Amino acid sequence: MIPTVGYAALAARGDLQPYRFERRELDDTEVLLAILRCGLCHSDVHMVDDDWGFSPYPLVPGHEIVGRVRAVGPRVDRFRAGDIAAIGCMIDSCRVCRHCEAGLEQYCDLGPTSTFGGYEPGSQRPIHGGFSSCYVVDQRFAVSVPNGMDLAAAAPLLCAGITTYSPLRHWKVGRGTPVGVVGIGGLGHLAIKFARAMGAEVLAITSSAAKRSDAIKLGAHEAIVSGSSDMSGFAGRLDFVLDTVSADHDIAAMLDLLRTDGTLCMLGLPKSGFKVPPMRLETKRKSIAGSIMGGMAETQDMLNFAAVHGIGADVEVMPIERINEAIARLKRNDVRYRFVLDTSSLSA
Amino acid sequence: MIPTVGYAALAARGDLQPYRFERRELDDTEVLLAILRCGLCHSDVHMVDDDWGFSPYPLVPGHEIVGRVRAVGPRVDRFRAGDIAAIGCMIDSCRVCRHCEAGLEQYCDLGPTSTFGGYEPGSQRPIHGGFSSCYVVDQRFAVSVPNGMDLAAAAPLLCAGITTYSPLRHWKVGRGTPVGVVGIGGLGHLAIKFARAMGAEVLAITSSAAKRSDAIKLGAHEAIVSGSSDMSGFAGRLDFVLDTVSADHDIAAMLDLLRTDGTLCMLGLPKSGFKVPPMRLETKRKSIAGSIMGGMAETQDMLNFAAVHGIGADVEVMPIERINEAIARLKRNDVRYRFVLDTSSLSA
Repeated sequence: MIPTVGYAALAARGDLQPYRFERRELDDTEVLLAILRCGLCHSDVHMVDDDWGFSPYPLVPGHEIVGRVRAVGPRVDRFRAGDIAAIGCMIDSCRVCRHCEAGLEQYCDLGPTSTFGGYEPGSQRPIHGGFSSCYVVDQRFAVSVPNGMDLAAAAPLLCAGITTYSPLRHWKVGRGTPVGVVGIGGLGHLAIKFARAMGAEVLAITSSAAKRSDAIKLGAHEAIVSGSSDMSGFAGRLDFVLDTVSADHDIAAMLDLLRTDGTLCMLGLPKSGFKVPPMRLETKRKSIAGSIMGGMAETQDMLNFAAVHGIGADVEVMPIERINEAIARLKRNDVRYRFVLDTSSLSA
Repeated sequence: MIPTVGYAALAARGDLQPYRFERRELDDTEVLLAILRCGLCHSDVHMVDDDWGFSPYPLVPGHEIVGRVRAVGPRVDRFRAGDIAAIGCMIDSCRVCRHCEAGLEQYCDLGPTSTFGGYEPGSQRPIHGGFSSCYVVDQRFAVSVPNGMDLAAAAPLLCAGITTYSPLRHWKVGRGTPVGVVGIGGLGHLAIKFARAMGAEVLAITSSAAKRSDAIKLGAHEAIVSGSSDMSGFAGRLDFVLDTVSADHDIAAMLDLLRTDGTLCMLGLPKSGFKVPPMRLETKRKSIAGSIMGGMAETQDMLNFAAVHGIGADVEVMPIERINEAIARLKRNDVRYRFVLDTSSLSA
C-alpha cells in the first residue's frame, strides 16, 4: 500500500483537515501520479457539504488533477516516469458497453466511477480525490499534459474545460457559428475561450453588468446582461447556447436567442429545473439538451487544442494548506475564475 | 369575386352555421379548389372556442382540405382543372427568407399565413377555412393528391400527417430505429403508421389500457400504458420519442425511455408546459425538442410516401351539415381517430 496524505472533510460541512490514508499498489496498466496542482470545483463543495445526500466521510475531494508520473505498471505504454499527466472527473467505467467502446465513457451504461466520493467497485474502500499527495489510476483514464502548459491553468481544464469543450464539439460549433455562453464563471470563462478559438461568433450573457468587460477580455465578441433590453436585440440570432448557470434563472428567455433548429445545452443544475411552454420550442424546432464531462479521447483532444491555442483557466493559486479559505471564498463567488490548490508540499 | 358558402362560428363557443362570403378571384399563380373533404382538428375547435384569445368572428375553420381543381391562373404550371389537390395549415409565407428558400415555410421569418383565422396580409379581409365550398390558393401552397388515395383518409394527412411525418424525417427515423409514440389520437395514430412504414421499431405509449390493442393494429410492435410498471422495462431503449399529447402529463418519464443522445419531440401544447430536472437530460446527453407542421415540398413527399405505403387516417366521415355533432364528439374524445366532413354538398 502507498501511504498518502490529503485534506479531508470528516463530516458534512466540516472544514477540511490533514488526513492520512493509503492508495492501492499499481496494477499492470496503472500509473502513480505525484499530485502537483488540483482545481477546486463547485461540485467539490457540494460533496463536502453533502448537498446531494450521498457523501461518504472522511471525504477527500478534488477532481481537476495535474501531477508528475512517479511509477507505471509493467503494461503501461502511454506514460513514463517523469511525464506530466492529468486526471479528471472519472477514473473508470465498464469499458465494454457501447458508450465505452465509442469513447463516451462519461455515459457508460453502468455509470463511470467518480474520482472521489464513492467506493472502489465491489469493495468498501473509499475513493479519495486529488487534494492529496498522489493518485493511482488506469492509464485509460489519465491524459497527457502537453509540454509547456502552465500546470495550474491546466488543472481546471480537466473538469470545467472538458465539460464545455465537449458540447461545443458535439453540436459542431465552428467558424462563424453564432454561439451564446450563459454565465461567466468557472465553466463559462472557458467556454468563451474555446468557442472563440473554434472560430465562433461569441455572445456572452451574464447576470452581472460588471462582468461584461471581463467577457470581452476573455474573447467574447459581445456581452449582454440577462433580463435586460439587450436580450431582444439578439432574439433568434444564435445557433447554439451553452448555459453554464446552476442558479435558478429564466431559461425560456435564453431559448428566445436561438434560431430555427438551434440548441440550448444545459450544463448546470438549477434546483427548480426548468419550466418551458412547449410552443417556445415548437415554433422554430428548437431543442433543450444537457451534457456532462467528455470522453477520455476527447479530453486528450481538448488538452491538445488548449495547448495549440494557448488556452488555460484564469486561476488564483493557493497552497493546499489554505483550502478552507478557498472554499469559503468560492461559496461567496469571490473568484475569477477558478481556485487551484498547489499540492506540491504534500507530494514532495 | 367568387360566391362561397361555408360553416362559421359567429361568436366564441357558438355552434357553426351556414355562412355566405366571397373568395377573391384567382391571381396568375393561384388555383381554385372545389372542396370535397375537410378534416376536423383539435385546433379548429380551439379557434372556434377562442381558447387562444385571437379568434376573429365570423370564423370558418378547417385546414385539412382535399378538393378538385376547378380553375387555374394563367401562370399555374403544377395543376390543371380536374386534378385532386390539397391544402394544409398554411397558405402563404414571405417566400424569400432563408427558411422559405430552404423549403421550411412553416418556420418563415415573418410567420406563415394560416389557412383560416387571420386576415389577408395588409388587409382587413378575413381568411376563411375549408369547411366551405371552395378555396383560392397559390400553387406553391397546394399539393397534389396521388391517384387512388381515398379522399377522406387523405384529408387529415395535411395537418396531423405532416406534423408527425416531418419530425420523423428530420430526426432521421429509419430502418430499425427504436421509436416511441406517446398518445394514440389524431396525430399519434398516423405517427405509428408512418414510423412503421419507415422501418422503425415502434413502441406506443398510451394513457388508456383500452387503446393498447388498437396501437398494435395500427402497426406498433409493442404498446404500454404510461405511468405503469411497463415503462421501466423500456427505460433507455428508444432513440426518438414523438410526444403528441396536449394534456398535461409526465414528460420527464418519457425522457427516461430515451437512450444516450436521444430526442423527445413535443408536438402538443400541454398548458403547464414541462418542468424537467436538467440532470434528466445531462446524464445521457438527451434533448427535448418541438416541431410544427412541415414545409410544402415535404408535405408533397409525405403524400407520395403515404400513397406508396397505403397510409391514410382512420376516419369517421360525416356530412358537413353535422359538423356541430362532430365538434361535440371530438370534445369528448369520442372519435377514432379523426372526423372528416364531406363538403361536396356545398361545392356541387
